[in-house]
Amino acid sequence: MYEGDKRFSIIEKEMEDPQKGEVRIRVAFCGVCGTDVHIYHGMMDQRVRIPQIIGHEMSGTVDAVGEGVTGFEVGEKVVVRPLDNRGEKPSDKGFSHICKDLKFIGIDSPGAMQEYWNVPSFTLHKLPVQTNLKLAALIEPLSVACHDVRMSGLRKGETAVVLGGGPIGLLVALVARSKGANVIISEVNETRVTLAERLGFTVVNPQKTDLINLVSHQTEDSMADVVFEVAGVQPALDVMTKVAGIRGRIVMVAIHGQPKNVSLFDFFWKELKLIGARVYEVEDYEESIELITKNELPFDKLITAVRPLSTIQTVFEDIDKNPHGMKVLMDCHA
Amino acid sequence: MYEGDKRFSIIEKEMEDPQKGEVRIRVAFCGVCGTDVHIYHGMMDQRVRIPQIIGHEMSGTVDAVGEGVTGFEVGEKVVVRPLDNRGEKPSDKGFSHICKDLKFIGIDSPGAMQEYWNVPSFTLHKLPVQTNLKLAALIEPLSVACHDVRMSGLRKGETAVVLGGGPIGLLVALVARSKGANVIISEVNETRVTLAERLGFTVVNPQKTDLINLVSHQTEDSMADVVFEVAGVQPALDVMTKVAGIRGRIVMVAIHGQPKNVSLFDFFWKELKLIGARVYEVEDYEESIELITKNELPFDKLITAVRPLSTIQTVFEDIDKNPHGMKVLMDCHA
Repeated sequence: MYEGDKRFSIIEKEMEDPQKGEVRIRVAFCGVCGTDVHIYHGMMDQRVRIPQIIGHEMSGTVDAVGEGVTGFEVGEKVVVRPLDNRGEKPSDKGFSHICKDLKFIGIDSPGAMQEYWNVPSFTLHKLPVQTNLKLAALIEPLSVACHDVRMSGLRKGETAVVLGGGPIGLLVALVARSKGANVIISEVNETRVTLAERLGFTVVNPQKTDLINLVSHQTEDSMADVVFEVAGVQPALDVMTKVAGIRGRIVMVAIHGQPKNVSLFDFFWKELKLIGARVYEVEDYEESIELITKNELPFDKLITAVRPLSTIQTVFEDIDKNPHGMKVLMDCHA
Repeated sequence: MYEGDKRFSIIEKEMEDPQKGEVRIRVAFCGVCGTDVHIYHGMMDQRVRIPQIIGHEMSGTVDAVGEGVTGFEVGEKVVVRPLDNRGEKPSDKGFSHICKDLKFIGIDSPGAMQEYWNVPSFTLHKLPVQTNLKLAALIEPLSVACHDVRMSGLRKGETAVVLGGGPIGLLVALVARSKGANVIISEVNETRVTLAERLGFTVVNPQKTDLINLVSHQTEDSMADVVFEVAGVQPALDVMTKVAGIRGRIVMVAIHGQPKNVSLFDFFWKELKLIGARVYEVEDYEESIELITKNELPFDKLITAVRPLSTIQTVFEDIDKNPHGMKVLMDCHA
């Protein structure tokens, strides 16, 4: 349980029966998301209810089925799409994944960093029997990447620049490449640069190499068709409108808490599009599940460590010491 | 001729024969664009070649046809689409109207504020015989509005907020309304507010009335489907992401010379789109010509004055004194 002030507690509690409409999941693995680290840092204390169990990048199996739930059997592999859209209204125009009263399970309500987790059955996606449950903990962040790429309208043969080579940036890059795009990653951290290079990407450290020149050279002046802003820093905003070519699409994946400086002139002059992209929709989860199950992309290389849930305090402390590692999973039954 | 330093000269010169591929136009009317006022203010002295004839919002008739030009006859009514895209390259990806080496006729080369004007024949659009040449001087700015609305993907029944009720803002509002949208205009200048109200629009002075509340009330919380940013000021940028509803599209029509503060968080959170829109394409001109020829919209109400070309100096001085008038045309043969 997150207790506030960078502290987690380990508690033992009675296993709860799933309520009407719920399923109890035996959680297998749960990844640590950047958002979880934000929570650990106390930056979301107004949204979580301390003490609270957090976590939402999970895989598991059905452990018990509550009243009124059909179509699920004990032992089936599942992942949770942690969006509670029961507050959806007509004014949300049918976009339930970002409805105004959306509750994010694992932030606004208890999460997956526990052995057993009760969730509404409508949040579940079944996995094929052959799906690897360790990799399946990447389905949630991979769904973000699938959503971002889908929102960009990326087509085969196009050039995509990914600003920021963290977990989401690399997943976006992998999905974009699988669609037939030429992908260039921009990342300042050398550990992440090395990993991205090992995944076969062209990687630029923009503090050492002129990204704009490189993109211009690689595209014979056409510049990028799509830019993914996953870095969340002002230099990325400065460069995103420059590396984008005429009618380029820029997908805003990063969360910028404050208004930032943007060259609206570039948007006007080159008829650029800025496309906000948040979480995922059902079809993104389905695409992500298929990608993870096929396992043709090097997803395993993104998993830096798998550690027992009981070590959660040191897991978060270690991430803090080395914020440039990649994805850490917690084994919820180790 | 614009002579620099807020001065125009009136010169007499020999009429020139059209060169190969050119047509000589007897200019009927030429409107004064905001860009012309910028030029008058010396803000584009690096782009115009002083002394230079400016102007690009024109109507006229074919006066002579140069070598190699077919399909035009003396006396035919025409307008010029003042885009010289002969420098187009493959890296422009087929978007010739905003190609990197685009020359804008009337800024980068001599314009229409003269009695006779030689232009490349590929810039011409023919007008039906019944088209009113005075209204036809609005075809160029109306094409901008048609382009903006088309880029927004506006659909019947949607709510559109137009930030800024100058000539382009009102034309955008008229086109949007003709597509079946509910249009709300935001404008601070009371003269313009009054004109927009006379055109039948819901108009808000955001310095007096809370625009966000009004849009929320009028849309039952759905907020705007489309926002046109035609104001070019920071308060419009602050409000544009607030009045836009979930998946709202914001069209950037205004020219912001410097990077400006934008709430990228709103783009992320509501999955907004920002769509840069510049000038027009052939189909926008065709739509605009059809609208002007049908003359079912109150275009005549936008024409504040028609004055002889010989009074150009006082025309610009008067616009400077009263920047909140609407469209002034110059009669090039009065």
